[in-house]
Amino acid sequence: MEKKVSLAVIKRLPRYYRFLGDLLDNGITRISSKDLSLKMNLTASQIRQDLNNFGCFGQQGYGYNVELLLNEIKEILGLNKTYNLVILGAGKIGQALLNYNKFEKRGFNFIGIFDIDKNIIGSELKGIKVQDINNLKAFSKENHIDIAVIAVPVANATDLYENVVSYGIKGIWNFSNTELKAKDGVIIENVHLTDSLMTLAYRLNSGEFVEE
Amino acid sequence: MEKKVSLAVIKRLPRYYRFLGDLLDNGITRISSKDLSLKMNLTASQIRQDLNNFGCFGQQGYGYNVELLLNEIKEILGLNKTYNLVILGAGKIGQALLNYNKFEKRGFNFIGIFDIDKNIIGSELKGIKVQDINNLKAFSKENHIDIAVIAVPVANATDLYENVVSYGIKGIWNFSNTELKAKDGVIIENVHLTDSLMTLAYRLNSGEFVEE
Repeated sequence: MEKKVSLAVIKRLPRYYRFLGDLLDNGITRISSKDLSLKMNLTASQIRQDLNNFGCFGQQGYGYNVELLLNEIKEILGLNKTYNLVILGAGKIGQALLNYNKFEKRGFNFIGIFDIDKNIIGSELKGIKVQDINNLKAFSKENHIDIAVIAVPVANATDLYENVVSYGIKGIWNFSNTELKAKDGVIIENVHLTDSLMTLAYRLNSGEFVEE
Repeated sequence: MEKKVSLAVIKRLPRYYRFLGDLLDNGITRISSKDLSLKMNLTASQIRQDLNNFGCFGQQGYGYNVELLLNEIKEILGLNKTYNLVILGAGKIGQALLNYNKFEKRGFNFIGIFDIDKNIIGSELKGIKVQDINNLKAFSKENHIDIAVIAVPVANATDLYENVVSYGIKGIWNFSNTELKAKDGVIIENVHLTDSLMTLAYRLNSGEFVEE
């Protein structure tokens, strides 16, 4: 890709992917940017602009071919590959993620789960044995890990992150309530649940229905 | 507030709140927009622009008073009040949220948890008895509920959402992997974990380090 695409646009792509997948499941094979805009609550011009970023141009009087567009977005998002993930922290969040079967459907495979708690190490969760976090270094040498899911308490998150990066893992999905320091070549995606809840509180208070 | 503030700005406020809280905890009582920008990885002009939206102006040569700014944002976000939440779905996600103690610190109190599974109804989670989802209507008459957390499988989410809204609950924190139809007077905040993971995959593939 030659030009940088803003994160705001990228963050909308999975949503396009979801909507287009639903359309195709319902036998809809083509759609105008106007109809898509009504469904997605975006303006038609916003949709055209977003998709133009990736060279997807609808045809005048025809609109978009849903399947082609879906495949295009799939490729852009890198969902034509599979990814190996490890979960660090076998608590409620870690277990919830492990049990969420949508991820595997999209090519995200959990290959390991790690914890520091001796009471849980050795037990099996969804067919995967919980390992001691001290095994992660050796495990990362034997297995290619694309993404580490950080699902430990905030107090342990930063040190763990430093270790994970030193093992050569490039993707971080961060559920700890802290911001991890950006490093060259490492991609961090944060899920700040408290921020999301605070945003909801704000919108409840202000009665504002602004949308992205 | 007289003018509409974009959701993008609102979504940054909790992050400001977190950073400023950390500063204050570390005894830092004032900060320039430049120093704040370095910490937060935003431009100084972005910060000034964001905060100007809410009438927070730093003083030339002094910067921002951290405590005043923190209190201002707290009030804007509505965190000087408390909120009553119910969790709908006592599975892993529901339990993870119930166990996350940061929420109570911010004034978000879980007052009920509901499920359809007879095996879990009646058991106690963190001191709260799991109720039959059919009790929600009566419960919502006896208790003021600000926010319903939808943590049920996608197949049940839409019907449940319709019920919740008919009971007069105005805030929806949606963890089901579907988009709920916007309704007048109802605020929906979505946590789409699959979208977040797909965004991470995209960024890993493209090697892009764009930030919002």
